[in-house]
Amino acid sequence: MSLIVVGSMAFDQIETPFGKSDRIVGGAATYIAWSASHFVTPVRQVSVVGGDFPQSELDALAARGVDLDGVQVMKDRKSFFWSGRYHMDMNSRDTLETQLNVLGDFNPVVPDSYQDSEFLMLGNLAPAVQLSVIRQLRRKPKLTVLDTMNFWMESAMPDLEKVLREVDVLLINDSEARQLSAQYSLVRAAREILKMGPRYLVIKKGEHGALLFHENHVFVAPALPLEDVFDPTGAGDTFAGGFIGFIARSRNTSFENMKSAVIVGSAMASFCVEKFGTLRMQELDRAEVDSRIRQFIDLVNFDIDLLG
Amino acid sequence: MSLIVVGSMAFDQIETPFGKSDRIVGGAATYIAWSASHFVTPVRQVSVVGGDFPQSELDALAARGVDLDGVQVMKDRKSFFWSGRYHMDMNSRDTLETQLNVLGDFNPVVPDSYQDSEFLMLGNLAPAVQLSVIRQLRRKPKLTVLDTMNFWMESAMPDLEKVLREVDVLLINDSEARQLSAQYSLVRAAREILKMGPRYLVIKKGEHGALLFHENHVFVAPALPLEDVFDPTGAGDTFAGGFIGFIARSRNTSFENMKSAVIVGSAMASFCVEKFGTLRMQELDRAEVDSRIRQFIDLVNFDIDLLG
Repeated sequence: MSLIVVGSMAFDQIETPFGKSDRIVGGAATYIAWSASHFVTPVRQVSVVGGDFPQSELDALAARGVDLDGVQVMKDRKSFFWSGRYHMDMNSRDTLETQLNVLGDFNPVVPDSYQDSEFLMLGNLAPAVQLSVIRQLRRKPKLTVLDTMNFWMESAMPDLEKVLREVDVLLINDSEARQLSAQYSLVRAAREILKMGPRYLVIKKGEHGALLFHENHVFVAPALPLEDVFDPTGAGDTFAGGFIGFIARSRNTSFENMKSAVIVGSAMASFCVEKFGTLRMQELDRAEVDSRIRQFIDLVNFDIDLLG
Repeated sequence: MSLIVVGSMAFDQIETPFGKSDRIVGGAATYIAWSASHFVTPVRQVSVVGGDFPQSELDALAARGVDLDGVQVMKDRKSFFWSGRYHMDMNSRDTLETQLNVLGDFNPVVPDSYQDSEFLMLGNLAPAVQLSVIRQLRRKPKLTVLDTMNFWMESAMPDLEKVLREVDVLLINDSEARQLSAQYSLVRAAREILKMGPRYLVIKKGEHGALLFHENHVFVAPALPLEDVFDPTGAGDTFAGGFIGFIARSRNTSFENMKSAVIVGSAMASFCVEKFGTLRMQELDRAEVDSRIRQFIDLVNFDIDLLG
C-alpha cells in the first residue's frame, strides 16, 4: 500500500460561464493526492513549487498523510500558473495564460525513502520528467499509470512514445485518444493505443462517463448526472487519484478490480466539480465517499430477464 | 400484449462521411415495428404510404407479425421522403430535402380491431396527428410513449404541449431536451420536462448512451462502443421499438422494468446503425438479440467492495 504520485502543484485561475475564481491552488499532483489519500496513505508526492506556494496547503496535505519529501521548494521562484476559460459545455476550454516558472526546468528527484513503493501514478507533466521518475525507480512498480494531454502529443511525441512503452495504464480524454491514434472511432482508437505500450486504457468522456479497454474487453462507467458543474478543473486528476488509490489499497491489478477503480475514480471526480479548486476534496469525508459510490451502483444497476 | 405504433413509413436517402445510400425504405413507424416485433406481436401499425411504397416491404412486415389494417395506402400519391447528410460525429445531421407528400394531410384512423390495445407508441409525427390517435382510443392504454423532435418544438409547440399532458413516457435526445426545457444541465432539463406531463423521461445521447428520469431517480444506460457506425438513421426509432416492445411483452410498467427496457432499446439501436436503413433489423434473429443484451450486462457490470 505505497503509492508515488508525480505531477504539478500549482496555481490556477478559472473562468466559467457561471463564475470566476481568484488565483487558487491546483495542479495535477495536488488533486491526485487529495483524492488518493481517501484510499491509501502515505501518498508519496514528487513535485516542485515556488516560494509563493502556501505553507498551509502543504500542511493540509501532510495532515492527510501525503509525504512531501519529494516536493522541491524553490524559495526564490514562482509556482507554475495556468489560467483558462471554460465554454458552455464545461468540457472544452481555452488556455488564457501559462507561466511555467519552476516547472520549466523541473528535475524530479525520487527520495530513497520512496524506493519500496508498489504503485506509481504519473500525473500530467512533460513526458521527459515522467520518464526520469520511471528510470530512478530501482524496482518496477506493480502498476504504473500515466496521464498526459494533447499538448505533449504536439510538442514532445518522441518522449511520450518512450513513456507509453513503460506504463501499464494510460488515462486520457476522448479527444486526446482520437489525436493520439488518428482514429475517430474510440474502439479503433483504443486498439491502436493498446499497441503503443499500455495494457489498459481509460478514456475519460467528462459528463458522458469513462471507458476502460483491455485486450478485447470494454467496460463503460457512467458519470453522475449533475444539476450543476461548478468547476471541472482537476476532475481528470481527481479521477486518476481515486483510480490508483483504490487499486493501491486493494493491491489488486486485475481487469475486474480495475472496473471498480474506474467507478471509484468517477465518484471522486463527481465531487471535485462541485466547488472551485480543491475545496470540495478537502472537506470530503469517508461516509460521503461511500455514499457516492453507492449512488453509482444504483445508477447503472438493472436486473433483466431475457425472454424465453 | 397488444401494441399500437403510430408514425411515418417513408423513403430516406442518406449521406454519411463514409457512404451514400439509394432511396431506401425508412420512417419512424417502420423502424419501431421491426424492432418491437422481436418482443411482441401483433404490432398494430397506424401510418400512411403512397402507391410508390414497395408491397414487398409491407409483406415483410406482415410476415413479422405487423398488423397493417391501420396503414392507409394512397395509390395515386407519393410516400414521405427525407434526405440528409451526417457530420463526422455521426450524431448531428443536416436535412437536405423533405417532401411531405401523403404525410402533409395525414388523418390517422384507428381501426376498431385495435381498440383493445394496452400499449401505445407515438413515433415522431405532427403532434396534432399523435393527439388524434390518443383521442380515438376509447380505453386509455396502460402506457403511452411519445417520441418527438425539435422541428415540432419550433412549429407546433401548443399542440406538442397538449400531447405531453397525455403521455406517460417521453423519448427525446439531449439537444431536444435542452431546447424543450430551456435548461443546459440535463438534470435540470429533466426536472422541467417532468412537470409538462410525462412521468418518465428518456434522454437519448447517441454514442454516449441514454438517461432515464423518474421523480428523483435517474438510471444511466451505456451505448455499446462500436468500431463503426454505418448509418445512425432510425436508431432512435429502433430504440423506441425495443423499449416499448419489451414493456408490452412483460406488461410491467414499473421503474425497475423500465430500466431494463432502456437497455433493450439500446441493444436494438446498436444493431440498427450497423447497416443502411432497416437491413440489419430485417435479418436479425432472437439469438443475436439475446447475445447483444448479454453484452450490455457485461459492459456495465462491476462488483465493488466498499472498503471498511
